Amino acid sequence: MNKRFVLVVDDSSDFLSLVELALEPVAEQHHLGILHATSGQKALAQLEQYPSTAALLTDLAMPTMDGLELIRRCRTRFPLLQIVVLSGRSDSGAIIEAIRAGASDYIIKPPTLEELESSLLSALERYSQLDRQLQVRDKLEQYERELAIAAGIQRQMLPLPLDSSRCRNVSVAALLMPARHVAGDFYDHWLMPDDRLAVCIGDVSGKGISAALLMAMTKTLLRSHIEHGSTITEALTATNRVLASNNPQAYFVTAIAAIFDPTTRTLEICNAAHADPFCISADGGIRQLSLPHGMPLGALETSTYQSIQVQLSAGDRVLFYTDGVLDALSGDLAEQERVWRQVICRALAHHGVDLQSALIAELSSVWVAEHLPDDVTVLMLELSGSAQHSDVLTVQREAVGM
Amino acid sequence: MNKRFVLVVDDSSDFLSLVELALEPVAEQHHLGILHATSGQKALAQLEQYPSTAALLTDLAMPTMDGLELIRRCRTRFPLLQIVVLSGRSDSGAIIEAIRAGASDYIIKPPTLEELESSLLSALERYSQLDRQLQVRDKLEQYERELAIAAGIQRQMLPLPLDSSRCRNVSVAALLMPARHVAGDFYDHWLMPDDRLAVCIGDVSGKGISAALLMAMTKTLLRSHIEHGSTITEALTATNRVLASNNPQAYFVTAIAAIFDPTTRTLEICNAAHADPFCISADGGIRQLSLPHGMPLGALETSTYQSIQVQLSAGDRVLFYTDGVLDALSGDLAEQERVWRQVICRALAHHGVDLQSALIAELSSVWVAEHLPDDVTVLMLELSGSAQHSDVLTVQREAVGM
Repeated sequence: MNKRFVLVVDDSSDFLSLVELALEPVAEQHHLGILHATSGQKALAQLEQYPSTAALLTDLAMPTMDGLELIRRCRTRFPLLQIVVLSGRSDSGAIIEAIRAGASDYIIKPPTLEELESSLLSALERYSQLDRQLQVRDKLEQYERELAIAAGIQRQMLPLPLDSSRCRNVSVAALLMPARHVAGDFYDHWLMPDDRLAVCIGDVSGKGISAALLMAMTKTLLRSHIEHGSTITEALTATNRVLASNNPQAYFVTAIAAIFDPTTRTLEICNAAHADPFCISADGGIRQLSLPHGMPLGALETSTYQSIQVQLSAGDRVLFYTDGVLDALSGDLAEQERVWRQVICRALAHHGVDLQSALIAELSSVWVAEHLPDDVTVLMLELSGSAQHSDVLTVQREAVGM
Repeated sequence: MNKRFVLVVDDSSDFLSLVELALEPVAEQHHLGILHATSGQKALAQLEQYPSTAALLTDLAMPTMDGLELIRRCRTRFPLLQIVVLSGRSDSGAIIEAIRAGASDYIIKPPTLEELESSLLSALERYSQLDRQLQVRDKLEQYERELAIAAGIQRQMLPLPLDSSRCRNVSVAALLMPARHVAGDFYDHWLMPDDRLAVCIGDVSGKGISAALLMAMTKTLLRSHIEHGSTITEALTATNRVLASNNPQAYFVTAIAAIFDPTTRTLEICNAAHADPFCISADGGIRQLSLPHGMPLGALETSTYQSIQVQLSAGDRVLFYTDGVLDALSGDLAEQERVWRQVICRALAHHGVDLQSALIAELSSVWVAEHLPDDVTVLMLELSGSAQHSDVLTVQREAVGM
């Protein structure tokens, strides 16, 4: 901490000496330097030179720049400085004017030693309080800068749009809106070497920084396992094992991993306690898939998962989402789900190539809160081609032994 | 925001009515409710009932509880409340006493309309300022709670101590001290199915929350690749590719991956721009290994890495560290490295089974700063057995084509 100072201002040098003498013991006790000035101008120069001056004791009646003018200038230039008037004027007008100009105490000359000391100590206490408030603000600003950078890093973790020249029969659109700076939601999609398309979506319990850490870990694990040749059920099982192996804080992650085969138009899906996706056929029919639900990732080390194969048709769309979408809607769960289906249908009716904008526009019109209560993530697969076979959507449940 | 109130206190109902009438326009303009009370006790009751009261205008001379007593009680109980005295007393003693008790303005009766309005507006402005400061503090506290939870999650990500019954010829001790709540450093160690021991250590550029996110991602990637059968050079190469593939923020990670084979006592090490580890033989000789340095992870998508095989002997210790250790020491780099070697030797001379405590004790005695400038991580492999072969430590460089 910088050394603090008290500055005494009076046009009488004799009076200055007396005050300095009186303040010496308390200044020494509080490691406080004493400065003095015989005019308002000199006082301002001293304050510029010693910016850690905590208290100003000033006379009112001084030539050229009077005490009131000095107080007003200090109020603007040195917001932390505590100002005490030390004046021979005892009329109410002078006192009230000084207080309104920014003085926090007023001592009528001649001051008693007790008055001087107690006024200075109160001023130092107020100065320290303001100083702590500034430190709190600085620290908050530092965290907010850190969080803004972390949010950028998180956006980098999301996949770039797929190379459409390599995408056969399918395209992907996705959207992630964090409720705070950083998100606990994630999604991922990538083309595998055999041109199958892998997609993942997930939602870490809780919000904020720890959710973001777990999001980074879970997303990385799922992709790494699948890229190394694991099936999606193996990938969820292995990811769960890592997350659950040492989890005293009892967080968990709901997630879906899925792989679309463009040759057969089948989608293999495996669900770890996540919201079931919707399937929207080319004629606009919308239904929620009914998937076998495994335990959330991280909850129980021995959890295993089942996948199912869904046969899709040209023009079908499969929409995955995190339940932050529902949390932003009013009503009970049934009402939220009803509105969410409406939003999907309206967004798809208008979206053309830009699902994100259409969804944001539709959601914004029904959201109840000014701020999202939870992260919102939506990921949609869209099968190209006409809808000759949209009536053959079937769900074949298939137990996968592990 | 709660509706704000101004409370006017005077034992004359007639005067109260006049003041209320005068304040009505400005109150309406600022969506301010007007409350009144005819005694100090009633005023306190009103304040309890309307905690979002922003300003108190009070008389001084009142029966039972006078204005000064009311001001003093309010100062303790309602720290945000702005107090203005509205009194017939115009003597300097009354004014100064009221200001010192906690009033921030003083109006002598009868007040002018302008005086009332301007005093109330100043009070509201000060109240808002204090209120914002409280919000800043609350938000900071929220972030600090989040960071504390995230720090717990990070500690969970660190590996549990190895199952010593499965460790052949080797033990591992490790230490991670974050400079802030959350760390950008990491380490990892685990026994592979064939009883070889894998270790990783890394240091993300930058500090704070984004470094923690990248730490989670990098650590997860390295382990996942090695667990899926990648060599350590392949694991670093693949991890680098993921980190570098979309890195506009230009962060990077230095890291080492190594695998110890207990059968042959060889250590394969691969270094991505990280500080070279020390090798300390059983007779206390200390030397820094000279490893081929690849680029930091994340810097360049096409980077590849080389590993070398180090032949170790019974009793040898290999100590990996992040350069946060050096940053905490005084002097130039050469001096920091000299002191760091001394610290290692002293810690090893005393450590017995607990390297962590010995290192912390030794480091604490030489650290210059009160707070760590960077995360500090140390990981040590210790080969069991006597030191018959401590003279055969050799470094065989071996280019690994990729």
